Amino acid sequence: MNFSSKLLGNAVNEVSQLPGIGKRTALRLVLHLLKQPAVHTHQLSEALNNLVDEIKHCEKCHNISDVAICEICKNPNRNEEIVCVVEDVRDVMAIENTAQYKGLYHVLGGKISPIEGIGPQNLTIESLVEKVEKKQVKEVIFALSSTIEGDTTNFYIYKQLEKFDIRTSTIARGISVGDELEYADEVTLGRSIINRIPFEKSL
Amino acid sequence: MNFSSKLLGNAVNEVSQLPGIGKRTALRLVLHLLKQPAVHTHQLSEALNNLVDEIKHCEKCHNISDVAICEICKNPNRNEEIVCVVEDVRDVMAIENTAQYKGLYHVLGGKISPIEGIGPQNLTIESLVEKVEKKQVKEVIFALSSTIEGDTTNFYIYKQLEKFDIRTSTIARGISVGDELEYADEVTLGRSIINRIPFEKSL
Repeated sequence: MNFSSKLLGNAVNEVSQLPGIGKRTALRLVLHLLKQPAVHTHQLSEALNNLVDEIKHCEKCHNISDVAICEICKNPNRNEEIVCVVEDVRDVMAIENTAQYKGLYHVLGGKISPIEGIGPQNLTIESLVEKVEKKQVKEVIFALSSTIEGDTTNFYIYKQLEKFDIRTSTIARGISVGDELEYADEVTLGRSIINRIPFEKSL
Repeated sequence: MNFSSKLLGNAVNEVSQLPGIGKRTALRLVLHLLKQPAVHTHQLSEALNNLVDEIKHCEKCHNISDVAICEICKNPNRNEEIVCVVEDVRDVMAIENTAQYKGLYHVLGGKISPIEGIGPQNLTIESLVEKVEKKQVKEVIFALSSTIEGDTTNFYIYKQLEKFDIRTSTIARGISVGDELEYADEVTLGRSIINRIPFEKSL
């Protein structure tokens, strides 16, 4: 694209660096900002700058947080002996929304992915092993997505924790509640039969 | 969405104000920024702030520009007697890319749209009439999109300019170059037959 205005060109270039946003979309977004009062753009910029400048990672669970220890880790009503291993803050939000989990989290910050150059040393695995070593934890729940990267990461961590006397578990895979069997994929349906649970427990 | 971090919540809220970006996409974009060095976000914010603070509108054609008179209006090689009426800078860029037009532009800044509360007084129509009145212009080309709003705007401007001794024209509508007739919509195909041109001209 050939911009006669350098200011416009710069803004479009910067916005189009965001994932999934091409030059055309960037131009549309930037022109939208230009039609609005400038104060909206200032608020947007300030919110983004404040975020990247002031955000911290919780010292215990590594989730992003405004303070040194996040609200979940600080909460005395949560069970410190159960730790759920997740990839990032989105997974924490998703599980928190269920209101079914009262343990703590451990946010890895990603999954082992040689293609993207992410090895175990780039994740917070060491600090998880430390937690287990100090006998603060009795159960570790793996809740990574079931992709190759997720399974690899699960297995790597599992191997690191094997020597300790703790329980490890993984979230149940199966047919979604409300889904029809005929549309379910074979792998999921297969797993949901192998890992069937006593009927009384489903009530 | 329930954010444990206020900084994150603020940033997601601001980003999700952009058109076509919901909360989930906003969260994805914001988390992407968090994974990058902070300097990237600062550059983005600076580019957006600079844009809204320093952008001007060309005093002649009302296109967005870094300086008081834009490069196209300043160019002595352009034909000042032909003015092409367009909606916004994207249309200017599209026509400039064809390298087929050597006249000037007049950027309306929108189309007449009662639903969106945009009347003729919100557009730069008055300044166009002034230009014509001062006899600077011999031909006005309407190049708005052929929607109800576009046609209304074209007609409104046409009525304003009727009393002056100038030519008015509209860009040709017809089958796209390379398109097959059988897939063309009826209105376009019909217009392309009514407005057929001498064969020699198409060579």
